[in-house]
Amino acid sequence: MFGKVLIANRGEIALRVHRACQEMGIRTVAVHSTADSTAMHVRLADESVCIGPPSARDSYLNMAAILSAAAITGADAIHPGYGFLSENANFAEMVEAHGLAFIGPTAAHIRMMGDKIAAKDAMRSLGVPLVPGSLGALESFEEARAVADEIKYPVLIKAAAGGGGRGMKVARSEDELEEAWRVARTESKAAFGDDSVYMEKYLDRPRHIELQVMADMHGNVVHFGERDCSLQRRHQKLVEEAGSPVLTAAERDALGAQVTKGLKQLGYRNAGTLEFLWQDGQFAFIEMNTRLQVEHPVTEMVCNVDLVKEQLRVAAGEPLGYTQADIRFSGHAIECRITAEDPETFAPNPGRVDMYHAPGGLGVRVDSALYSGYTVPPHYDSLVAKLVVHGQTRAEAIARLKRSLDEMVVSGIKTTLPLHQRIVADPEFQAGDYTIHWLEKFVSRGH
Amino acid sequence: MFGKVLIANRGEIALRVHRACQEMGIRTVAVHSTADSTAMHVRLADESVCIGPPSARDSYLNMAAILSAAAITGADAIHPGYGFLSENANFAEMVEAHGLAFIGPTAAHIRMMGDKIAAKDAMRSLGVPLVPGSLGALESFEEARAVADEIKYPVLIKAAAGGGGRGMKVARSEDELEEAWRVARTESKAAFGDDSVYMEKYLDRPRHIELQVMADMHGNVVHFGERDCSLQRRHQKLVEEAGSPVLTAAERDALGAQVTKGLKQLGYRNAGTLEFLWQDGQFAFIEMNTRLQVEHPVTEMVCNVDLVKEQLRVAAGEPLGYTQADIRFSGHAIECRITAEDPETFAPNPGRVDMYHAPGGLGVRVDSALYSGYTVPPHYDSLVAKLVVHGQTRAEAIARLKRSLDEMVVSGIKTTLPLHQRIVADPEFQAGDYTIHWLEKFVSRGH
Repeated sequence: MFGKVLIANRGEIALRVHRACQEMGIRTVAVHSTADSTAMHVRLADESVCIGPPSARDSYLNMAAILSAAAITGADAIHPGYGFLSENANFAEMVEAHGLAFIGPTAAHIRMMGDKIAAKDAMRSLGVPLVPGSLGALESFEEARAVADEIKYPVLIKAAAGGGGRGMKVARSEDELEEAWRVARTESKAAFGDDSVYMEKYLDRPRHIELQVMADMHGNVVHFGERDCSLQRRHQKLVEEAGSPVLTAAERDALGAQVTKGLKQLGYRNAGTLEFLWQDGQFAFIEMNTRLQVEHPVTEMVCNVDLVKEQLRVAAGEPLGYTQADIRFSGHAIECRITAEDPETFAPNPGRVDMYHAPGGLGVRVDSALYSGYTVPPHYDSLVAKLVVHGQTRAEAIARLKRSLDEMVVSGIKTTLPLHQRIVADPEFQAGDYTIHWLEKFVSRGH
Repeated sequence: MFGKVLIANRGEIALRVHRACQEMGIRTVAVHSTADSTAMHVRLADESVCIGPPSARDSYLNMAAILSAAAITGADAIHPGYGFLSENANFAEMVEAHGLAFIGPTAAHIRMMGDKIAAKDAMRSLGVPLVPGSLGALESFEEARAVADEIKYPVLIKAAAGGGGRGMKVARSEDELEEAWRVARTESKAAFGDDSVYMEKYLDRPRHIELQVMADMHGNVVHFGERDCSLQRRHQKLVEEAGSPVLTAAERDALGAQVTKGLKQLGYRNAGTLEFLWQDGQFAFIEMNTRLQVEHPVTEMVCNVDLVKEQLRVAAGEPLGYTQADIRFSGHAIECRITAEDPETFAPNPGRVDMYHAPGGLGVRVDSALYSGYTVPPHYDSLVAKLVVHGQTRAEAIARLKRSLDEMVVSGIKTTLPLHQRIVADPEFQAGDYTIHWLEKFVSRGH
């Protein structure tokens, strides 16, 4: 096992990784910008190194500074957390070139999954379900019409070179197809200099369901079930659940079997998450994240597993030591992402936290780097706390979430705590009756 | 189910009961002395009533004031927590006489178990193991020798009329028996005017192991396994574990089967704990506590059960709804009782808590009514926080306990946090190699 791990991150996830290391007897090195010198991850780590000014580009994204910090402290591995350099294949390569272990997949797999087309091609070849559509760019309007007839309306025409919603048009019937075809190509040409478009089935009320996987270096791959992360605002997840309120055990098992078989074939290693849209019992692969996810705690709580320790173990070459049959799902877990934002406008609201009081008691977990008197700096992501609850049933988890949100105090800055209190009290949320569009509407309805 | 529960207690256990009620949709009434008007249990309860001055005798033990508070608030049940009135049979009777439910056993069972002789007689008749020995006073030295041969040395000769260690002598072999017999009788005659003595097996290195039971009003009784509470100082438990580091599953099952059968025969209801001394695979019943115990959270964490909710459910007449076979034990849990005491002299150290920061992350539970700025009053028990951890193995739980003790901050008053840090770092504790005498020696060794 590693003797010393450098944690190339900040905030709650740096603390999360530190905790796992400490419990395994591994020494930790914190890195930090000048804005984070009093941060919790720096206070608790065995050693810390300042790697640059507040700007993330010059500190948490500064590969040379991070590698130097690892060299001078004698770290033998780097955990990237999420965000920052966690899905940077070049960084993974550089870490290994310096003789350190990168706690994550190979650079080749990071690169493959970072390329959304290549990722989909790989998943298609492995039998993982994708959204139905044209296999590549559409040659002609006639081909577009033929594919739409086959996959059924509504359909989505998307720029092959695209991203960010540009060059993307929905056709809900054949009447709308020509217009969508024309506009998508024009926008695509204007935005990307390329008018190639392709077609996908348009899912009008999908849920976001993702599968947590873990693989060792010996060909063993398991999954830890799904998370339902449909509650999103502008593609930012706010509330996540394990398991999904809509998935049956049989559906989970079938998807899990297909995915783990595929990843074994691919030679994937360490943690990963496959994200899917789900509607009417059908999964459609969106992308794979080759790192720990923000919402990993809900999985830990229903599976009774420490995913960061598993990452460390497999990165050190240990075999998993258990099989899929050993993984049991018990009860239900829900996570709220509490951010330093105005709960109505979502404007960031960094500043000094006068008082921080975490809720406690049975089934309550808080992952946060906050403390009373800490100043949330304005330079980084606004996530300040993850409140995670576990209950024997979803109803108990919701009741527990409600009472623990009521107990939690973060004063001095605005946070999204009041929004979470509203969500958890909502009958549609309580019924599990929501799609990826639900939260936008809920937020726009106001109080 | 009850609509409103009055919680006749204070501190962390009042908060514990409040949380369970809130999650079940039951309104809560806090009662408090004038010293506790800013206490957390008062702040969080739906309603609160001041029941008297700081002295517990005039407030938390003031039955009339508590019953009046229940009447004026329209509560339909009373939860007594632990300590105070929780094992007062008269109070349980008065509560029921006022048409309210007492969340606990019947007054008759509280009374029976409160009488230590009657409790032992009851347990003997139910086949629950007691310490081996003569069934009554020894008639002659020859009988003493015969009993000692049967139960094996070392043996203890005790004054039948005795108490406080007088008229009590150990014989470690037959050579020592005649002397012990003579001295015990002489001392007994001198101290109590009666030279009758009896004999028990002497347990020189016992552990304290207790069994958690739960019974409904329909004859269903289950147990939730054992807790090892051997780490005691002056009969005060400091650290508790579930399960015991020394007990096998077969031993637990055998004891549990005998106890649940016995309690079913007795018609016992609600929560209860049977305390045993254990040595060399033998259990010897000491006493039964007819209430929730301080250390109940370790059981909750290994059994994935909310014992307070179970108490409320069975007190409302609901059947358990599960059987012994449904109860699974998963992983290992350890609790540290953190008190407002000098960690070296154990002198109480109440006062203002400048900063309270609870540890967080996976597998960590904190039950505490502390908050930053709260003043711990000098009038009550010095317990201020229970830090409870759960791990997949005992080793993981210990590592998690160590790191969470390191994260915890209670400043402004002295607490036993440093003592717990020393205990958890000790190789003998880590090996699970301790008896009920271990902690006294550990404390006297100092730093």
